[in-house]
Amino acid sequence: MLRHVVGGLLLFVALVAASACAPSPESTTDPVAPSLDYAIAIHAGAGVIAEDRQSFRAEPYVESLERALGVGRSILDEGGSSLDAVERVIVLLEDDPLFNAGRGAVFNHEGRNELDASIMDGRNLSCGAVAGVSNVKNPIVLARLVMTETRHVLLGGAGAEQLGLELGLEPVTQDYYYTQPRWDALQRAITGEAASSGGGTVGVAALDREGNLAAGTSTGGLTDKRFGRIGDSPIIGAGTYADNRTCAVSATGKGEEFIRHNVAARISGLIEHGGMTLQEAAEQVVNGRLVPGDGGVIGVSRDGAIAMVFNTRGMYRGAANSAGRFEVAIW
Amino acid sequence: MLRHVVGGLLLFVALVAASACAPSPESTTDPVAPSLDYAIAIHAGAGVIAEDRQSFRAEPYVESLERALGVGRSILDEGGSSLDAVERVIVLLEDDPLFNAGRGAVFNHEGRNELDASIMDGRNLSCGAVAGVSNVKNPIVLARLVMTETRHVLLGGAGAEQLGLELGLEPVTQDYYYTQPRWDALQRAITGEAASSGGGTVGVAALDREGNLAAGTSTGGLTDKRFGRIGDSPIIGAGTYADNRTCAVSATGKGEEFIRHNVAARISGLIEHGGMTLQEAAEQVVNGRLVPGDGGVIGVSRDGAIAMVFNTRGMYRGAANSAGRFEVAIW
Repeated sequence: MLRHVVGGLLLFVALVAASACAPSPESTTDPVAPSLDYAIAIHAGAGVIAEDRQSFRAEPYVESLERALGVGRSILDEGGSSLDAVERVIVLLEDDPLFNAGRGAVFNHEGRNELDASIMDGRNLSCGAVAGVSNVKNPIVLARLVMTETRHVLLGGAGAEQLGLELGLEPVTQDYYYTQPRWDALQRAITGEAASSGGGTVGVAALDREGNLAAGTSTGGLTDKRFGRIGDSPIIGAGTYADNRTCAVSATGKGEEFIRHNVAARISGLIEHGGMTLQEAAEQVVNGRLVPGDGGVIGVSRDGAIAMVFNTRGMYRGAANSAGRFEVAIW
Repeated sequence: MLRHVVGGLLLFVALVAASACAPSPESTTDPVAPSLDYAIAIHAGAGVIAEDRQSFRAEPYVESLERALGVGRSILDEGGSSLDAVERVIVLLEDDPLFNAGRGAVFNHEGRNELDASIMDGRNLSCGAVAGVSNVKNPIVLARLVMTETRHVLLGGAGAEQLGLELGLEPVTQDYYYTQPRWDALQRAITGEAASSGGGTVGVAALDREGNLAAGTSTGGLTDKRFGRIGDSPIIGAGTYADNRTCAVSATGKGEEFIRHNVAARISGLIEHGGMTLQEAAEQVVNGRLVPGDGGVIGVSRDGAIAMVFNTRGMYRGAANSAGRFEVAIW
């Protein structure tokens, strides 16, 4: 396998030879010092990622992930909250047409974009989410407003959009989300071809200097999904979970599998009730419960350890912490 | 506290004196034989249930719960699947205007009915759910069709309704759901008064003769909820969970709390990873995680043990099994 690693401001590509067999579970371990001041992990989708890796241009993805990770690190380094870091980094990734969230979201079967997002505050388990919104520029911003401005956790469709208008979010029209690669992917999916077309769902988990964990996830869902389909990204416990007692987690992959296996909260539960580390819990769920090809997770534990575990050929991801770690990788 | 118990076909009301202090956690223990052939537990909402218990007519609720429980027991007794028992019993409760599901659902702030439901098969974690549907007579039926007829788990709003039409479900108009007590409750809620108005969310957990667990939940949600609000009932892991390795659970109460605490799947996880019995796990979550007044859960374990635990003054509920147990209770 290849591994693209970006350190500091210098693009550093390390090619690591790996097994030639079928896609196998892979993980990034993080034997971390116990006294990290802050830590952040990001992902932007898991999957095959470029059948033909020779002609795939990884640089735009790497640069975008590095930029987003850098912003998150700066927020945390300057004493900002993990919640702010999660929201701000996801906004950047939503605005980037490379990834399947916000601008650049995939199309449903009807050729429309329906977006899901969620955010969770590990301090008190406050959370907010939106599902199936189609005129919101940054679903993660609206998800946070559901958390802070309503007594509810999850708002769907037109009801969520109405809240956004009430709170002054500028609506966008469907053409805002449009990108040619996603449209082409829908056409291929409808005719039964592979639909892979770039970056995926985006998510962030972070620990701030106050010791507070937060996580968030945003997505356009599945290419060619049924009108109205809601995936795991807006489901607290499936695609997103954060609890100061344990960890913050964001997931990416085949959403239905992540819902039925209760992935994000299961990882938290394995730490809380099963005595595992974050790394052990993430591996247990991704490699023991899910099956190869389903996807992956990123997470940060209460002591700042970072886990990035996936059972696909690749996962767009990045990790940074107060000890100077700063790296982005795809495979 | 009072406890209404119905045994067999005979209405038997036992008045049990209890502590006079504020509402305290309560549970129904079930020291069960290890070789039950089948078991079923149902609920129809938890809450204060009649401030003035003297003038409250419990009989219609007790009779309706008894009828529904009897149908579920018959299905299981005759070798039917837990999944069929769950769906059929929930249909009966949805059709009953006493309960907040299907006909008799509560109104949202705009005076409309938006319904949520989910169902899960413990054999393989298959699951289906619908959120915010407004023209479906039996949301639990549509939830099961999402499970069996699509590759998705959760469909929202118009997308879910479209699937129902495609699959031949007869749509209903909003006036189908209308009941005067629910309408009056909305008016009281809008003016800031207490909104309690009868039975609540309905749910079923069952174990069949094949050893398969299933669970389902259906609701109209919260009186005066925001347009688009989705509660815990359609969220796999929050309001509903079933896994043959552990248990089947359905929850009722303040949905947002059940989502953030990942209630149904947490109970399953405490059995799987924490070494608890169903009863211990349910008590741990309802009394250790949730706070008094939040609601309750019913569940059936893989060996047929039944748990019914709530932290409210009452919970409409019933339990039956192959050893002859058959009881319905409110307080």
